Amino acid sequence: MSDKIKAPSVNKTVKPIVEKMIAEADQLRIAVSKGEAGETLIDCGDKVPGGLEAGRRMAEVCLGGLGTVSLEVADTESPFAFNVTVHSSQPVIACLGSQYAGWSLSAKKDDGKTYYVLGSGPGRALGSSEPLFKELGYRDTADEGFFVLEADAPPPASLVKEVAEACKVKPENLTFLYAPTSSIAGMVQIIGRSLEVALHKAHELHFPLENIVDGIASAPLAPPAPDFVQAMGRTNDAIIYGGRVQLYVNGDEKAAEELAEKLPSSASKDYGQPFAEIFSAVKGDFYAIDKMLFSPAQAMVSALESGKSFQAGGIDNVLLNRCFYK
Amino acid sequence: MSDKIKAPSVNKTVKPIVEKMIAEADQLRIAVSKGEAGETLIDCGDKVPGGLEAGRRMAEVCLGGLGTVSLEVADTESPFAFNVTVHSSQPVIACLGSQYAGWSLSAKKDDGKTYYVLGSGPGRALGSSEPLFKELGYRDTADEGFFVLEADAPPPASLVKEVAEACKVKPENLTFLYAPTSSIAGMVQIIGRSLEVALHKAHELHFPLENIVDGIASAPLAPPAPDFVQAMGRTNDAIIYGGRVQLYVNGDEKAAEELAEKLPSSASKDYGQPFAEIFSAVKGDFYAIDKMLFSPAQAMVSALESGKSFQAGGIDNVLLNRCFYK
Amino acid sequence: MSDKIKAPSVNKTVKPIVEKMIAEADQLRIAVSKGEAGETLIDCGDKVPGGLEAGRRMAEVCLGGLGTVSLEVADTESPFAFNVTVHSSQPVIACLGSQYAGWSLSAKKDDGKTYYVLGSGPGRALGSSEPLFKELGYRDTADEGFFVLEADAPPPASLVKEVAEACKVKPENLTFLYAPTSSIAGMVQIIGRSLEVALHKAHELHFPLENIVDGIASAPLAPPAPDFVQAMGRTNDAIIYGGRVQLYVNGDEKAAEELAEKLPSSASKDYGQPFAEIFSAVKGDFYAIDKMLFSPAQAMVSALESGKSFQAGGIDNVLLNRCFYK
Repeated sequence: MSDKIKAPSVNKTVKPIVEKMIAEADQLRIAVSKGEAGETLIDCGDKVPGGLEAGRRMAEVCLGGLGTVSLEVADTESPFAFNVTVHSSQPVIACLGSQYAGWSLSAKKDDGKTYYVLGSGPGRALGSSEPLFKELGYRDTADEGFFVLEADAPPPASLVKEVAEACKVKPENLTFLYAPTSSIAGMVQIIGRSLEVALHKAHELHFPLENIVDGIASAPLAPPAPDFVQAMGRTNDAIIYGGRVQLYVNGDEKAAEELAEKLPSSASKDYGQPFAEIFSAVKGDFYAIDKMLFSPAQAMVSALESGKSFQAGGIDNVLLNRCFYK
Repeated sequence: MSDKIKAPSVNKTVKPIVEKMIAEADQLRIAVSKGEAGETLIDCGDKVPGGLEAGRRMAEVCLGGLGTVSLEVADTESPFAFNVTVHSSQPVIACLGSQYAGWSLSAKKDDGKTYYVLGSGPGRALGSSEPLFKELGYRDTADEGFFVLEADAPPPASLVKEVAEACKVKPENLTFLYAPTSSIAGMVQIIGRSLEVALHKAHELHFPLENIVDGIASAPLAPPAPDFVQAMGRTNDAIIYGGRVQLYVNGDEKAAEELAEKLPSSASKDYGQPFAEIFSAVKGDFYAIDKMLFSPAQAMVSALESGKSFQAGGIDNVLLNRCFYK
Repeated sequence: MSDKIKAPSVNKTVKPIVEKMIAEADQLRIAVSKGEAGETLIDCGDKVPGGLEAGRRMAEVCLGGLGTVSLEVADTESPFAFNVTVHSSQPVIACLGSQYAGWSLSAKKDDGKTYYVLGSGPGRALGSSEPLFKELGYRDTADEGFFVLEADAPPPASLVKEVAEACKVKPENLTFLYAPTSSIAGMVQIIGRSLEVALHKAHELHFPLENIVDGIASAPLAPPAPDFVQAMGRTNDAIIYGGRVQLYVNGDEKAAEELAEKLPSSASKDYGQPFAEIFSAVKGDFYAIDKMLFSPAQAMVSALESGKSFQAGGIDNVLLNRCFYK
C-alpha cells in the first residue's frame, strides 16, 4: 500500500455501527446487557429472535466497519432466492485483520464445562497473538474493543478479563456480539464471510497478502438449522458450492493465474459432498478436513499489472438444492 | 418474541425518513405543503414527477422505518431488468402493523363525490380499528402519525380530522404521503409490498403470525400505466407472477410445509391470467377475486425448529412479458 | 418538471459525500492534499490503491449527490460476477448536468506537454460553456465546485485557476477527485455511467430531454487493465455489450418506441467488435467512431402517457467473455 495511506483503526471505525445497533436494539430484536466484568453483551440470536438485519449488521461489525454487506435477490436459476454480498474498502485488513475467526478463546464455566469459541471481529487486532497479524503488518491500538462470537452464550467473566488484559483495555470497554450458528443472524454473519474465506485460502496458498488489492464476493443465503452440524454444514456449503469471488491482485500474471486455479473449493480433494457429510466422515475432526476446501465455488482473479483475468470453478446448484432442502 | 424485546414505535422510527424526504423534496421531485386541517401533505407523484427514488422512500415509510427497500438489477433472463427487494428487521410489525393498506378511509369531498382510499403506513398502528391489530398484539402510541396513500389527491380536511381523532393526535401532527397507482413512485411503493402480501396471505391461511420470525422478498419493477386498472394489474402481476419470498417460521415442520404449498399465487384457482383481465372478468368487484391469488409467485419457507425448508411455485416470465409489454 | 419543483444545487448536494470521503480517506485508501492554487485534490487511484468502494463513491460524486451507485452480484450466467447499478432521483440533471464528461479542459504542464482531460461532475454546472446546459435549462450557482477527472495526474495550477474563473469561485473552493482509467476506482466510476450514456444517446437522437422522467441502469464490473486503450475498451464494452437501461418517458408513444429501437448499441453500424479493436481500426480517432455505439446493450423504454413499454437490444456474454478475459 502507498506510504500515504495510514491503516484505519478497525475498532474506532466500527464503533458507530455498534452504537447504532444498541440504539436500535428493539427494532433489531437483539438484547443489550452488561456482563459481570463490566463488558457490553449483545445477544443477536440466542435468547432473542434477531434476524436477517441483525445478522447483516453483525457481518459489518466483523469487517471492522470497513465493509458493506447486502442482502440481494439472486437469479431465478438459484436454488435459494437471496444472496449475501460483501465488499470492503480494505479487504485484507477488514477480512483477515478483523472478520476472520482466528482468536481461539476458552475458559472454564461456572458449571465446570469449558466455554470455547473462535473470536472474530476488530478486537482481534488489539490483543490476539495470532501470527497472522505479523504477516498483515497490522495492529490496532484503540481503547475499546469489539468482538463477534459464533456462540450460544456470552463469554464467561474470566474470559472477558483475559481478553481485556490481552487487548490492554478495561473489561468495561469491551463489547461482545454473539449469535449461535443455528440462528438467522448467525447464518447471515457466517455466510457474509465469502470474501474472508477467499482471502484466507489465498494466504494458505502462500499468495502474498500485500499483493491483494481488492475483492468482492457473494454467497447464497442458506436456511438455518437447529442442529449445529447441519447449520455449520449449510453455511459452509453456501460458500463452498455457491460462493463467488472476484479478487484484484498485484504481482506476476502467472501467480494470479495459479491463484485462480487453486482458489475455488473444487481444487480440494474433499470437494463434492455436503459439508456436514464430510464433517461426519472425519468424525467431527475439523482439522482432518482439507484446508483447500474452504473457499468460494467460483473465483475470478484479475492481475492488475498485466490486465489479464482468470477464472475457475463454478456453482453447483444441484448440490446446494440438496443441502438446503434436505 | 422474547420478553426482552420491546416493540418499536413505527411512527417514531419512521420520522427521520420522512424528515429526510422533506429536506430533500426538490431532489426527489416531490412537493410538501400544509393541508387545510394543518396536516403535512407530501405529493410523491400526483402533480409532481416523483420517480423511482421517491417511490423507494415511500416504501420505506410504509414499513415504519423498520425495513430496507432496494432497486436491484435482475438476471438477464428476466423480462424486466430491475427488481424491488424488501426486507425488514421485524417483518410482521413492519408489513402487517404498518405497510398493509388496511384502514378503509372515506369522506365526502367538496364536489360531493366520495374520496375513498385504503390507508397504509405506521399511522394505522395509532388509530385504525382493524381487528388485525388485536391479532398482532401491537399498537403504537406516538404523538405523530404518518400515512401512505395510493391516491391521486390528498385527503379532504374532514377525513384528516377524523383520522386525527381516531389516532388521538392533532391534525397538524399527521403527515400524508400520496402518489397515484399510475405514477412511478406509486408503482415502486406497491411492488415493494411483496413481503407484506406474503405475510398477509399467511395470515389468511391462518398461519400463526407469532410464528413468523423473518422474511425477505423481491418482485420485478413493472412499468407504470396511466390507466388505473392496467397499473394496478401490473403491480399485482409483478408480485403474483414474478415475486419471490423467503420466510422463516417457528412451529411444526408440517405447518411450514403446508404454508409453502399454499403460499404461492399458483395455489389460487384464479391464477393464470394477467390481473387486469381477472379484474375485468369479475367486473371490477375486487372482493370476487380469490384472496389466495394475492401472493408472490414463488415461496420458500424454512422451519426453524426442524431446519427443513420447503419451496413451491415459480416465476412465469412469459406471462410477465405479456403483461408488462402489452 | 412541475413548477413546484426547484432544481437542486448539485454542488451543494454532493458536498457531504465528498466530506465523508475526506474524513474516511485512510479507509478508502485515497489521498487528500492541497494543490498549488489552493484547490483540494483527491487522488482515488493514481499514486494510491483506492479500490471498488473509492470508485463507487466517485461515481456518486459524479451524479452530484443525486444518485445511488451499488455493486451487486450478477446472475450466474454472467461472464463477470458483479454489476455496477445506478439510479438517480433526477437522472437528467444528475447524469447530463453533472456526470457527463463534457467539459474539455487543457493546459500546458511544467514539462511543456499538454494536460488534457474531459471534466466531469457537478462543477460543470457552475462554469462549463457546453451548449448542453442551455438545453437542460439548468445551472448551479454554489460557491464551491466539485470535479471528477478520469486522469493519471492532478490538474496543473494554471488549469485550476482557469476553471475557478469560469465557475466564479475561488480556486480554494474547488475540489478535484481523479483516478486513471486503468485503476480500480477509475473503472467503477466509468462503468457507473451506464445511465448517463443512455441519456446522452437519447439526446443525440434528438429525443427531448424534458420528456425523460426517470431511469435506472446497470453494467458488468469489467476488470481493469494497465493499458489505457484496453482499460477504456473494457469500460466501453461493459456498457455497450453488457449494459441494461430502463427509461421512463413522457410524450408520444411512437417516440418512445423509436427511442427504444435506436437506443441499444446494436443500432450502431460499429457494433459487434470489442471497443479496443474498433478504436484501433480508426487509429485512435475517437470522433471517427459512430456516436450511436455509445449506449447500453439492452434498452427498455416505458411511455408514461400510454403505458406501453418497448425493448430492444440484448447482452452479448460471448463478446464480454472475450474482452474481459483476453
